[in-house]
Amino acid sequence: MTLAAFRSPSAVAVVGASDDATKWGYWLARGALAGAARRRVYFVNTRGGSVLGQPAFRSLSEIPESPELVTFAVPGRSLPAAVDDALVAGSRGLLAIAADVADETALAERVRAAGARLIGPNCLGIYDAESELSLAWGRFEPGALAIVSQSGQLGLEIAGLAAKAGLGVSRFVSVGSQIDVSAAEVLADLVDHQRTRVVALYLENFADGPAVLAAIDTLRAVGKRVLLLTVGSSAAGQQAARSHTGSMTSALDVVDAAVRSVGTIRVDTPSRLVAAAQVLALSPPLNGRRTAVLADSGGQAALAADVLTHAGLQVVDFPESVQTRLRSRLPRAALTANPIDLAGAGEQDLTVYGAVVDELAASAAVDAIVLTGYFGSYGHDTALLGPLEITVAKRIGAAAGQYRVPVLVHSMASGTDTLAALRGAGVPTFGDIETTVDALAAALRLAEPIASSVAALEPVRVSYAAGTGYFAARTALGRAGIPFPEGNVINAAADLARPAGAGPYVVKADWLEHKSEQRGVIVNLADADAVRRCLHDMTSRLGPGRYVVESMDTRADVQEIIVAARRDPSFGPTIVIGAGGVLAELLRDTVTTLVPCSREEARRLIERLQCYPLLAGWRGRPGVDIDALVDVAVTLGAILVGSPDLAEIELNPVRVGPRGALAVDALIIPAHPGR
Amino acid sequence: MTLAAFRSPSAVAVVGASDDATKWGYWLARGALAGAARRRVYFVNTRGGSVLGQPAFRSLSEIPESPELVTFAVPGRSLPAAVDDALVAGSRGLLAIAADVADETALAERVRAAGARLIGPNCLGIYDAESELSLAWGRFEPGALAIVSQSGQLGLEIAGLAAKAGLGVSRFVSVGSQIDVSAAEVLADLVDHQRTRVVALYLENFADGPAVLAAIDTLRAVGKRVLLLTVGSSAAGQQAARSHTGSMTSALDVVDAAVRSVGTIRVDTPSRLVAAAQVLALSPPLNGRRTAVLADSGGQAALAADVLTHAGLQVVDFPESVQTRLRSRLPRAALTANPIDLAGAGEQDLTVYGAVVDELAASAAVDAIVLTGYFGSYGHDTALLGPLEITVAKRIGAAAGQYRVPVLVHSMASGTDTLAALRGAGVPTFGDIETTVDALAAALRLAEPIASSVAALEPVRVSYAAGTGYFAARTALGRAGIPFPEGNVINAAADLARPAGAGPYVVKADWLEHKSEQRGVIVNLADADAVRRCLHDMTSRLGPGRYVVESMDTRADVQEIIVAARRDPSFGPTIVIGAGGVLAELLRDTVTTLVPCSREEARRLIERLQCYPLLAGWRGRPGVDIDALVDVAVTLGAILVGSPDLAEIELNPVRVGPRGALAVDALIIPAHPGR
Repeated sequence: MTLAAFRSPSAVAVVGASDDATKWGYWLARGALAGAARRRVYFVNTRGGSVLGQPAFRSLSEIPESPELVTFAVPGRSLPAAVDDALVAGSRGLLAIAADVADETALAERVRAAGARLIGPNCLGIYDAESELSLAWGRFEPGALAIVSQSGQLGLEIAGLAAKAGLGVSRFVSVGSQIDVSAAEVLADLVDHQRTRVVALYLENFADGPAVLAAIDTLRAVGKRVLLLTVGSSAAGQQAARSHTGSMTSALDVVDAAVRSVGTIRVDTPSRLVAAAQVLALSPPLNGRRTAVLADSGGQAALAADVLTHAGLQVVDFPESVQTRLRSRLPRAALTANPIDLAGAGEQDLTVYGAVVDELAASAAVDAIVLTGYFGSYGHDTALLGPLEITVAKRIGAAAGQYRVPVLVHSMASGTDTLAALRGAGVPTFGDIETTVDALAAALRLAEPIASSVAALEPVRVSYAAGTGYFAARTALGRAGIPFPEGNVINAAADLARPAGAGPYVVKADWLEHKSEQRGVIVNLADADAVRRCLHDMTSRLGPGRYVVESMDTRADVQEIIVAARRDPSFGPTIVIGAGGVLAELLRDTVTTLVPCSREEARRLIERLQCYPLLAGWRGRPGVDIDALVDVAVTLGAILVGSPDLAEIELNPVRVGPRGALAVDALIIPAHPGR
Repeated sequence: MTLAAFRSPSAVAVVGASDDATKWGYWLARGALAGAARRRVYFVNTRGGSVLGQPAFRSLSEIPESPELVTFAVPGRSLPAAVDDALVAGSRGLLAIAADVADETALAERVRAAGARLIGPNCLGIYDAESELSLAWGRFEPGALAIVSQSGQLGLEIAGLAAKAGLGVSRFVSVGSQIDVSAAEVLADLVDHQRTRVVALYLENFADGPAVLAAIDTLRAVGKRVLLLTVGSSAAGQQAARSHTGSMTSALDVVDAAVRSVGTIRVDTPSRLVAAAQVLALSPPLNGRRTAVLADSGGQAALAADVLTHAGLQVVDFPESVQTRLRSRLPRAALTANPIDLAGAGEQDLTVYGAVVDELAASAAVDAIVLTGYFGSYGHDTALLGPLEITVAKRIGAAAGQYRVPVLVHSMASGTDTLAALRGAGVPTFGDIETTVDALAAALRLAEPIASSVAALEPVRVSYAAGTGYFAARTALGRAGIPFPEGNVINAAADLARPAGAGPYVVKADWLEHKSEQRGVIVNLADADAVRRCLHDMTSRLGPGRYVVESMDTRADVQEIIVAARRDPSFGPTIVIGAGGVLAELLRDTVTTLVPCSREEARRLIERLQCYPLLAGWRGRPGVDIDALVDVAVTLGAILVGSPDLAEIELNPVRVGPRGALAVDALIIPAHPGR
């Protein structure tokens, strides 16, 4: 059923409307009245009388029509009866603020049975700039940012920070407990919402994960980008979020992989969300990391270069041709390398800012420009310079637009006309250098190619019975395409005719999950005799059982990598690739992707590992066969997708050498262990 | 010579005073006039007439006295003559703004010869709140923060951000080119500056490093803390800073070690500096990392916990006794674990905020309290609630003061009376959660024990002739107390009577600096025969020469650590301790300290290594003998201090086991290699 009633209802009723400015009934009534030119507004108060100078009805039934949208400023205990009244009155859009509502499930069922929709309860309301619908706490400035939030107050915090940054709100929906209308539905409903260019999404759980991803994907297809804010990266944060929502928080690396698969990113604070939203709302897309810094102070130039470099942007020198042109425009003391320090040239002639930005934007030598320092303050400090500074601001914006190069301005000023002119011309402005750089870094992450989910993936079914051991696992995985060393399984030393493959050999106790700790793996056995002696010894130590004899991987320049396939409760099969070795384990050097994952995406992920330089060839050593590692990862994903009986598969380690990869241990965990 | 002329001069002359609001002569004249109640003010303009309604003299010589302080708003080319005029006129305090001054050295010499002092040139002026002296660009609010800056504009940016945060300026000195008065002198001069409680110091080079450290130390002794901002952490940043100052930037890890040795920290942006300064100016000292989060929204509670945890603060559960007391004050839906979500209790009764903060501060269960969310907005959104909210703000401040627990407030509001009341009561306020947490994290770093520089250190002299090889190095270092395996040196296989120490053995080509790459180290030689065969083989491969035969360290559970001693051009001898192994090298897992360094400080540094968990005992493996590693580091420092002929000593690696450490390679670089 549509959410039309929440967008531009023909009539709104406020149940519990009040004149008391400390009460929700006041805020909702005041907001409803602000849209009175667009729709009929009714107030309901059991005591009758008047509210904000308008007569109040004693009940919904007294209203002469079925108001399309009814909002309730009543305590949680009174909400179910009030909703029932609204359903009887024929209303089909319901907005419930109250927390502490008993039996939310039953309430939701009655709403749905009546063919109505309900947003909330436990929410802070809705706002729509297009239809001047304001039924929420606080005040909103109209603009391009939609806010969909599972925490109403965090939504309001985002709106407040956006307003300070000169970014208005197109729509605000505090989805609350989502007993009926879900965040995913509200997101999807933004597709044809004209004013919305960027969406801020705050979610605490991803039970509805695939629907949320689908909505983000649909929005992206029409040019609207979503930025996700979530919590749960710390145990304490998770605890607060869980008890708030009563549902489990997904591990954040899976969430990151999930949003990457639909071309968006997670941000970690409201301020950073707003900073990124400013760039998305105003700037052309970023196409690379080469950033020019233009400063009117050597200190600020250096600082910007430091902060940009730390954030993964590049502050590289300009080609000589560009420097020559810059030199012709600037005084001798100015730096024309990157960062540029105008060294007083801007003070002498304000138009220099515009000319240099234009030169840089036109040069094709940079992907973005950061202007940092005093610009934006001239007109404020010296009124005489105001008009010229605004003209320069417009020229800067025009250069950004013409050459499709994002220009970001960090200004020591705040709230000046010049800053407003910059934003009006498509140039976001920021109050400190780290926020500026955060925004650009977010744009860079958003510029990454989307993790293609359309990779051709042929699911591969693998059968494995719980507890059947390593050899059964390697046999099953080996048939499905995972490379293992040659090997065979025996029950006693006497069984061994000749070890498979070339020596030296390794002997493993087939049934042990953590073999090393119990000395269940013995390596470097030169020949069949050594293997036989070893089997003897192991049998006497560990008891009789199945033992696996494998050809040992003795290649040089091998790196050990962990590859695992797991199921996430919200997002399904995932692949984790991690560096082996104890230090890597300590540092949790891993990357995660949803399955299916294209080979290109797998490779990009591997390049993000901290240990990647070792894989690529460190200090003259040869690099390893990353294609072979990609094969293992993609194949493992296909196996998990094709094998619903399996919960998890771990290859630890996969030994990747200059030519080829070999899994030398494998563990399969069935979906229902022990059954 | 004192800097008294720059603090509260009896008379000020502005050379180049002007009515043109776009000129420096206007800003200086206007500022000088603002202090006219405190001192005589003279304007000089070659055209005479009047400036800002006051008659202007045609030259300094016309002024009826020697103005104690003269400031110059003249172009760089005119500055030397103008300064000479001021010296003739008998002025002893000179403030020069202009850039592009020719022959600064000669100018400085004339100033000093005349017994005068000069600040600048190439600076943005000075301000002193105590004496109402304002000779600078911009406007300042009086307050507790002194700003000493090598970049005038960064200094102004800090002042602007501080003003936004409600933090005023006690003094501002843009030191410019420091041709006479240095930043270190200006710092030292703040010792008896009453209004100053915190100092923001921006420096781009540390040629004057020890004097700067001494000044910071003196300030700390009188309760004034300094926060250092510098640049050069990226190549591009370094380039901008260097050409700006014409001097070399120190490596930042040495700078960090240097400021730590005098109990302060480096911050990396102006905003973070101001955030930390707010806490230093307002809060009691922080004594630990246990942080309580008090929120009025589950989302903000979770977010604060996440951001705090990432910054190294701890959001741990409260003891049951504290939770019981909290429960008695809060509704059933509220979370009394950490983070606390008031779940509407604050809306019902504003005094809950004060009661909970008081309860937490009194509990001794937390070291700091972060209040996040709506508090600060009540009075603004609902005027009726204003007075009560301010009362609660004062109670929060009283609790912070009484129990000496820092309370930091992140509020969705900005500029409200309640926020001003909080700051007035000793509670810093912030506009977003990451700034709040940055500030607390800085306070935590400032709470660390000071790297004691008074550790008893007996310098140890070591002699080493360039190029005399590994054995000479190990002999010299061994005598000085660095432990090496048993070993001896021979010139041919035939020399070998019996290897020193127990087998297995290692043979090393004595003269090779990078032994492994040329197969100049052969390990695991079982006995004297194997050593002999190896020596034969190496001699045939590498040629005749000195070879070292050592007992091989075969202990289990050993970690390889790099320990190096180096001289920094600004700060002298330093020790670097780093994790061995290729991944650690890739991650640059190192710590640095100045020498001398106490054993306690060496241990604290080692605990900061990313690989520290491996040293402490990872996953049930035994930990290593950190005391032995500390011995090696402290001894190496004593050697570098005692051996002025040596530039650098590197032990790579030192093998540290559960009992004892052994250096198994050593390289000494003399101070003048090749001489």
